[in-house]
Amino acid sequence: MEKYVIGVDFGTLSGRSLLVNVKTGEETSTAVYEYRHGVMDETLPDGTKLGVDWALQHPQDYLDTLAKTIPAVIKEAGIEAEAVIGIGIDFTACTVLPVKADGEPLCFDKSLSSNPHSWVKLWKHHAAQPEANRLNQIAEERAESFLNRYGGKISSEWLIPKIWQVINEAPEIYDTASRFIEAADWVIWQLTGKEMRNSCTAGYKGIWHKEKGYPEKSFFAALHPGLENLVDDKLSTDIYPAGKKAGEITAFASELTGLKEGTAVAVANVDAHVSVPAVGITSPGKMLAIMGTSTCHMILGEQERIVPGMCGVVEDGIIEGYFGYEAGQSCVGDHFQWFVENCVPGEYLDEAANEGVDIHELLARKAMSLAPGESGLLALDWWNGNRSVLVDVDLTGLLIGANLNTKPEEIYRALVEATAYGTRMIIDTFEKSGVEVKEFYAAGGIAEKNSIVMQIYADVIGRDIRISGSPQAPALGSAMFGAVAAGAEAGGYDSIYSAAPVMGKVKDIIYKPDRGNVAVYEKLYHEYEILHDYFGRGENNVMKRLKEIKKGIRNE
Amino acid sequence: MEKYVIGVDFGTLSGRSLLVNVKTGEETSTAVYEYRHGVMDETLPDGTKLGVDWALQHPQDYLDTLAKTIPAVIKEAGIEAEAVIGIGIDFTACTVLPVKADGEPLCFDKSLSSNPHSWVKLWKHHAAQPEANRLNQIAEERAESFLNRYGGKISSEWLIPKIWQVINEAPEIYDTASRFIEAADWVIWQLTGKEMRNSCTAGYKGIWHKEKGYPEKSFFAALHPGLENLVDDKLSTDIYPAGKKAGEITAFASELTGLKEGTAVAVANVDAHVSVPAVGITSPGKMLAIMGTSTCHMILGEQERIVPGMCGVVEDGIIEGYFGYEAGQSCVGDHFQWFVENCVPGEYLDEAANEGVDIHELLARKAMSLAPGESGLLALDWWNGNRSVLVDVDLTGLLIGANLNTKPEEIYRALVEATAYGTRMIIDTFEKSGVEVKEFYAAGGIAEKNSIVMQIYADVIGRDIRISGSPQAPALGSAMFGAVAAGAEAGGYDSIYSAAPVMGKVKDIIYKPDRGNVAVYEKLYHEYEILHDYFGRGENNVMKRLKEIKKGIRNE
Repeated sequence: MEKYVIGVDFGTLSGRSLLVNVKTGEETSTAVYEYRHGVMDETLPDGTKLGVDWALQHPQDYLDTLAKTIPAVIKEAGIEAEAVIGIGIDFTACTVLPVKADGEPLCFDKSLSSNPHSWVKLWKHHAAQPEANRLNQIAEERAESFLNRYGGKISSEWLIPKIWQVINEAPEIYDTASRFIEAADWVIWQLTGKEMRNSCTAGYKGIWHKEKGYPEKSFFAALHPGLENLVDDKLSTDIYPAGKKAGEITAFASELTGLKEGTAVAVANVDAHVSVPAVGITSPGKMLAIMGTSTCHMILGEQERIVPGMCGVVEDGIIEGYFGYEAGQSCVGDHFQWFVENCVPGEYLDEAANEGVDIHELLARKAMSLAPGESGLLALDWWNGNRSVLVDVDLTGLLIGANLNTKPEEIYRALVEATAYGTRMIIDTFEKSGVEVKEFYAAGGIAEKNSIVMQIYADVIGRDIRISGSPQAPALGSAMFGAVAAGAEAGGYDSIYSAAPVMGKVKDIIYKPDRGNVAVYEKLYHEYEILHDYFGRGENNVMKRLKEIKKGIRNE
Repeated sequence: MEKYVIGVDFGTLSGRSLLVNVKTGEETSTAVYEYRHGVMDETLPDGTKLGVDWALQHPQDYLDTLAKTIPAVIKEAGIEAEAVIGIGIDFTACTVLPVKADGEPLCFDKSLSSNPHSWVKLWKHHAAQPEANRLNQIAEERAESFLNRYGGKISSEWLIPKIWQVINEAPEIYDTASRFIEAADWVIWQLTGKEMRNSCTAGYKGIWHKEKGYPEKSFFAALHPGLENLVDDKLSTDIYPAGKKAGEITAFASELTGLKEGTAVAVANVDAHVSVPAVGITSPGKMLAIMGTSTCHMILGEQERIVPGMCGVVEDGIIEGYFGYEAGQSCVGDHFQWFVENCVPGEYLDEAANEGVDIHELLARKAMSLAPGESGLLALDWWNGNRSVLVDVDLTGLLIGANLNTKPEEIYRALVEATAYGTRMIIDTFEKSGVEVKEFYAAGGIAEKNSIVMQIYADVIGRDIRISGSPQAPALGSAMFGAVAAGAEAGGYDSIYSAAPVMGKVKDIIYKPDRGNVAVYEKLYHEYEILHDYFGRGENNVMKRLKEIKKGIRNE
């Protein structure tokens, strides 16, 4: 009997299951469930209004994803549930909820469900920004060494600011909660009947370190007296790396999913991180960029290095046995989309419609008829601030070099190039900090669809670019960890190192840098660097001052 | 019998006559002639191909303007030709042609008319840029003092580079030409039968100084041995200020125009300069901005001051008895037009069409709903280089402060504001150099039509703005000088000082600065200044380097 594993990828708006043949890596079937409640950013299901920058989710949607998509992929493949030997999952992060001792979400309790703080705070819930700002200030004052591991700043999207917001605004919810738990780990709990906290979210989002653990009590007390015992009281300290078996499908979970009781379940993971082995990477020196609305850069290293402006470094955070590094760009696909929505003349839209092509495709094609440097334009890719390497949300976009002959496709190309320069800045910063970047891989919607963007990236970074062989890299990676959880004896693998060469994959196409283009981009990147440092490192803080003026106006 | 004067304004694409009542200033009738040959920038009438950056005109179009529009305004007003006591004209400049000793344009000679150099070189003929570059280099090496009077640079649009191009590329045309003459002065010659060179074009475009005359022979010889005697051989050195009577309508001109023989004809003028008295300005401290595709700033002073980056200072250049200063911005209306053509989404155009309003109007209205500083955007208005005060065609546009919520109307407003900051930079530079700017006037299409732009200007420069009372300020100014040429005895005026209070006019509306807005713009302008100096004064020459890279690509 052929053996299969399932990977479940919990995204922002939907969840997806992917059934994969363990020995061939073939992706046999897939099924998607669009969350019924989506992202709740205006009201709760009972109509309770939410504040600005809130973003919640409903845990029932996660259970429904399991219930609907797992049976669907088994059925579509025409296999028996017995053929599925393991399951792994990945999630957006930090997506966190308060639960009772038995794992019941507080929002499932009618007496609490009108309180927004009882619900799942989605990764992009930004209402804890004041807490994040204050946390960073306190951490700097106390010279907390953990700051270095996170590029000097803890994001408002992460665990501690989100919990701090709960105790600030709804102390009764804080008190009632037995655990604050990543949604990823909560789903594993539903499948296995026990809490098995994963090292990826703990490390990248929860300020946990394999040797040093969480920050000290005195740090939490400095944030809020009520948080002093947060770690002991409300967080799990038993933390497991990806690839570990979390447990087995329970009777309850078998009922829910159709999987057999006893099927192996892997420790949970994060969507970006789990994609690394999905393209076959299990060793240092190979950077994976997951390119969508924003970009995540993942790379493995043998030592813990402090890389300025990275998002995080976590031992066992990606693959057990290595330090996993993460960096990011906050505005990539979003950048191009902004341009299309706000800056493209009607005649271009008409032209795209007449040809029956997407406007991005039309713009990219026009842009590709230009040589590098031909437009005379240069941009800084900070339309949504800068995540790495400056870690500064108050930076803004810049376009330089326009004249009266400047065309939309020239600006579009300049924006694409700007994001490529941003990636090169990240690569260079890693290398200067002792983390080598020998190979470059890309996954995600842009890598999958936009060959013109990828060629520009190859020319700008001067490296070959390999593309994920699966359009569903996170789900594939999760399935691979499911195979590792099952183990070789059951027909899976003993480690991700043996799974990756078989199940991980890249496309045949490799984007190779064009030597002439590389030479021009060398010059342009040098100009980018000068502007990057001038506007980004304090020499001229005009971007921040303009934001201050803007805030002054809006608060009037 | 009521007395009338006629002003004829020769523009880039058409010529206009305006009939004005001398004693009331009432504009009785107007007529426009669209030049049959327009701007010849691709071929001559016989099909001869023109080079890149060429822009020629046909002198016949000027004669046809006189022949068609003067009879038309007389007829429309229902007056007798005897009632017209004087005529004045203004022209684009430097618009120059080679003529024979009798004033016949070389291009009227069939044996020469296939040579592009026999035609009128229009102001925006830019093919003499290599000559201009070399001229400036030589002038700097020789430390020619005239450079200071022209902001340090002689433009390729001006007289000497254009003539130098002729001797370089068509020495036979140079040799055959008896005179190189401004089209303005050529038209006066056609009306009066004699050459009467005007001080405005001689001063602003011909490097002529009332006391020092033209540059020395050795300077011309340094340009080209054949140019050593240019002044003596090919240029008139009898130069007359505006308001002087050039002569009287001849029998030939009477035949052409329907005006009576003996009607007074004023010395010619330039469109921008002649507008100064048309808004009633005849004394120092009052700046007039003529705002169209680009902007000219004119102001009178009592002394000759060296103002960095001005376009020129010429004694008697605007009004006899004063030093006339000119500065300019090379990209104003063109800037907004570029934006509309290249950066406005289809839905905005649909909205404008549905409302039946111009897209500029829609954008301006949306932009006006924003408070100053609210967008967080700032731009440098260098989409077409910088004329004053940096005098650098190689500077390019910059937009800073964009984010993913930035809307088209916010960018539009930022571009408008950028041009206003450019005007403020000019005002400040004049004041720092000892030329006071107490009042501010505006004329031209934008001043006439766009109240939102004008309010932004008032807020940025912190001064009241008065608007030309006539939409045809140049033609009105020319008519006024026609009345001065006629003299008081004939029913006109003895000087422009007595004509201006009666015939010059401003609208009732005054744009007054809003105190709150002024305070915000103070801060924004400070940021503009920092970027202006950083990118414009050599600290970071990225704009020039990007242009170099671009040229390298295009020349490959």
